Amino acid sequence: MASVEHIRHFQEELQQLKTRLLEMGGLAEEQVRLAVKGLVDRDRDLIEQVLTGDEPLNALHIEIDNRCFTLLALHQPMASDLRSIVSAVKINTDLERVGDLAINIAEAARRYAQHAPVKKLIDIPRMATLAQSMLRDALDAFVRQDTQLAQLVLNEDDTLDSLKTQIFRELLTYMLQDPTTIEPALDLILISRHLERIGDHATNIAEDVIFIVSARDVRHHARENG
Amino acid sequence: MASVEHIRHFQEELQQLKTRLLEMGGLAEEQVRLAVKGLVDRDRDLIEQVLTGDEPLNALHIEIDNRCFTLLALHQPMASDLRSIVSAVKINTDLERVGDLAINIAEAARRYAQHAPVKKLIDIPRMATLAQSMLRDALDAFVRQDTQLAQLVLNEDDTLDSLKTQIFRELLTYMLQDPTTIEPALDLILISRHLERIGDHATNIAEDVIFIVSARDVRHHARENG
Repeated sequence: MASVEHIRHFQEELQQLKTRLLEMGGLAEEQVRLAVKGLVDRDRDLIEQVLTGDEPLNALHIEIDNRCFTLLALHQPMASDLRSIVSAVKINTDLERVGDLAINIAEAARRYAQHAPVKKLIDIPRMATLAQSMLRDALDAFVRQDTQLAQLVLNEDDTLDSLKTQIFRELLTYMLQDPTTIEPALDLILISRHLERIGDHATNIAEDVIFIVSARDVRHHARENG
Repeated sequence: MASVEHIRHFQEELQQLKTRLLEMGGLAEEQVRLAVKGLVDRDRDLIEQVLTGDEPLNALHIEIDNRCFTLLALHQPMASDLRSIVSAVKINTDLERVGDLAINIAEAARRYAQHAPVKKLIDIPRMATLAQSMLRDALDAFVRQDTQLAQLVLNEDDTLDSLKTQIFRELLTYMLQDPTTIEPALDLILISRHLERIGDHATNIAEDVIFIVSARDVRHHARENG
């Protein structure tokens, strides 16, 4: 079973799996970017494009899941390879959820566009940019098994959290002063929470990276003592 | 490798894994129940108990994860057993998140208790009861590989969603009429969304059950033709 040819084939398949996950991450990130651009520009066409644009993500989700199970069943990998592939199943789920959250943002943006703007949007695009870069870094950290980059993602989650709190406080002031802002402000609060959850998914991925590498370290340690 | 003894041992380990997942589900569900009881009764001690009560859940999360990886590495299961164990890793994550959401509900309940009550809470406890029963049914469906029960959970998600919308509309009316209700009403809206997400986790589990069983059906089908 564990011939050189077999191992080479396995490593190629694993590499392809990682490439497809990066591609899926790119699609999810783009949906988030477009949803927030649609919100800021009050661009209903763009918003509709996001709302109907999750098909490629869903197709890739199924393909990646199949790749993971095929790798597990045919190659029966051990230790850190096993953890990488099971993590890929989880990361795939995280990325699908990010796609769902982009849809949720677009839905709230569509409602928001029906009201007068509450304020100039500055912190929400900032949150979106940060959440997107966290997602990208987390996936890069997974592909390169880079725990330092993964740790960076975990730290950035605090910044995202403060931005969310700041947005909430500011919008609460608007709502208390002028009841006509209540409905649209609620949608902005919801959007900030969707962005926070995108950060949470990036955090999940980063934690998986640390978990995979620490398992490898444990194995290495056992070998040294063995 | 695949001796009768080996298979018996594997089946025992798989059974224990399922028992531990049910236990974890019970703990998560209880945290949700207590958080909502703390909200309704304005019971600060109970709320604090939830806020500091996630240690057993976190310990069980790690234990279940280890059991899954040990099963995968030592027994190298195929087909539906493989899918069951990888699903167990995902379900374990879902249940940990439900525990986190119970903490989020308790945090919002603590803030809510600092204001005069907005209204008598009827729909939120109803949402909580439904979300808890969805979670229980989804786990039972997993243990018994019961797709009918899993389908029931998927259907119930619509009811949870309507309750959430109804709560939102009602609270919006309160907020528009009386600005002093804005802050506490926002916490109730947040809590209804946390409960909706608990339903989402139950739905994830139910979808996994359907996925596992359909994979088994595919294998059976292939055998019949083989």
